[in-house]
Amino acid sequence: MIGRAFRVLDAFSPQRPVLSLSEIARRAGMPLSTVHRLVHELAEWGAVERDDAGAYRIGLRLWELGALAPRGQGLRERALPFLEDLSQITRENVQLAVREATEVVFIERIAGSRAVPVLTRVGGRFALTATGVGLVLLAHAPVAVQEEVLAGPIERYTARTVTDPVRLRRMLADVRARGFSVSDRQVTMDALSVAAPIHDQHGQVVAAVSLVVRYGSAKPEALAAPVRTSARAISRALT
Amino acid sequence: MIGRAFRVLDAFSPQRPVLSLSEIARRAGMPLSTVHRLVHELAEWGAVERDDAGAYRIGLRLWELGALAPRGQGLRERALPFLEDLSQITRENVQLAVREATEVVFIERIAGSRAVPVLTRVGGRFALTATGVGLVLLAHAPVAVQEEVLAGPIERYTARTVTDPVRLRRMLADVRARGFSVSDRQVTMDALSVAAPIHDQHGQVVAAVSLVVRYGSAKPEALAAPVRTSARAISRALT
Repeated sequence: MIGRAFRVLDAFSPQRPVLSLSEIARRAGMPLSTVHRLVHELAEWGAVERDDAGAYRIGLRLWELGALAPRGQGLRERALPFLEDLSQITRENVQLAVREATEVVFIERIAGSRAVPVLTRVGGRFALTATGVGLVLLAHAPVAVQEEVLAGPIERYTARTVTDPVRLRRMLADVRARGFSVSDRQVTMDALSVAAPIHDQHGQVVAAVSLVVRYGSAKPEALAAPVRTSARAISRALT
Repeated sequence: MIGRAFRVLDAFSPQRPVLSLSEIARRAGMPLSTVHRLVHELAEWGAVERDDAGAYRIGLRLWELGALAPRGQGLRERALPFLEDLSQITRENVQLAVREATEVVFIERIAGSRAVPVLTRVGGRFALTATGVGLVLLAHAPVAVQEEVLAGPIERYTARTVTDPVRLRRMLADVRARGFSVSDRQVTMDALSVAAPIHDQHGQVVAAVSLVVRYGSAKPEALAAPVRTSARAISRALT
């Protein structure tokens, strides 16, 4: 029963945040009558809300509950002042992300006033292998996770996306040795990102912070200094 | 079954974000064996996560799902650039809130660098009658909601909290006539807030934005101009 309720909730996505009952039924692969009953129960608790047109969307109650997730809102709240400093000083895109299984989840994104457009959104997911934050999180993931990701398939976004597991393995070793990652036009051909790890009080890498800039506008080494400084400051705030 | 799952999730709160199984059982008022089974199912989907010490917390998956709520993350994303402008220009606390039944829910809060401490947190709730954002949201709520709130009980926070329904009714009329609200030391004796309504494309008031400043540091009328300007800008961004 819980599983079916979550299948209803899983029908909603960033691309489809508002759905009719029949759309939910189709996406969840369940009979309309079952969905009707489940949605009614979910709406009673506030997990979904009905809009004026009769369509459904994720409810504020679920957003409130999600705000209690330490790896989401908790991390974001502690990191936000430092992310804002980094954004104001560089005027570039600043991103904060964590790893969930074999993907990146973006926890916060501040768009820079002179920044290159980026594909990410808060709450959105992305492959670990292509982005700067993903490379940092993969470099510090358990070996089992690294092996699963490197076994592929490794998604290609641009002609520059690294999909060769041998080369990726070398890049991950570099990330650990240098203390930061560089994603050079691996996601879009006009963007470069530099990311650094955020540690918790036990020294575990729990998140990553990055700057995403227009390709050619700055050297990765010059970006690494502010990003690493910000990552260290956030790590201190977590202890 | 869904209801019992949500009772488990409702055991978590801003004050108690991490709970053991027996704490969940006690707070949810359910047998430990039932809670054990429910938590296991919730953990399988990612709604809760087990930490290294064996305690449970709200999971990242629920945070991701909550990020799809249009009245939470959707509103926040569109409003954030304007809230940051208001924060940088005034260096005071900026708050964004919506109404859920008879309470305020805070969607965003940016702490000003020279700002007075405030009680609110993102995802937190508060009475509609005391705060600046609450007065705006109540002033534009359906009559049935206004009547329910004014029928009481009306919570008192300070000696200045207005709890007289007749006086509150007059304040709400003022909010509608002037286009902004003033909460003068109604929440804490050192703070004053000024709030303005945010409208959606249909002209409905869907949120409120406020500045919270140290009492005596600025005249409400002087704060109203930037707050109303920011509220109008966010309203335009929602259409």
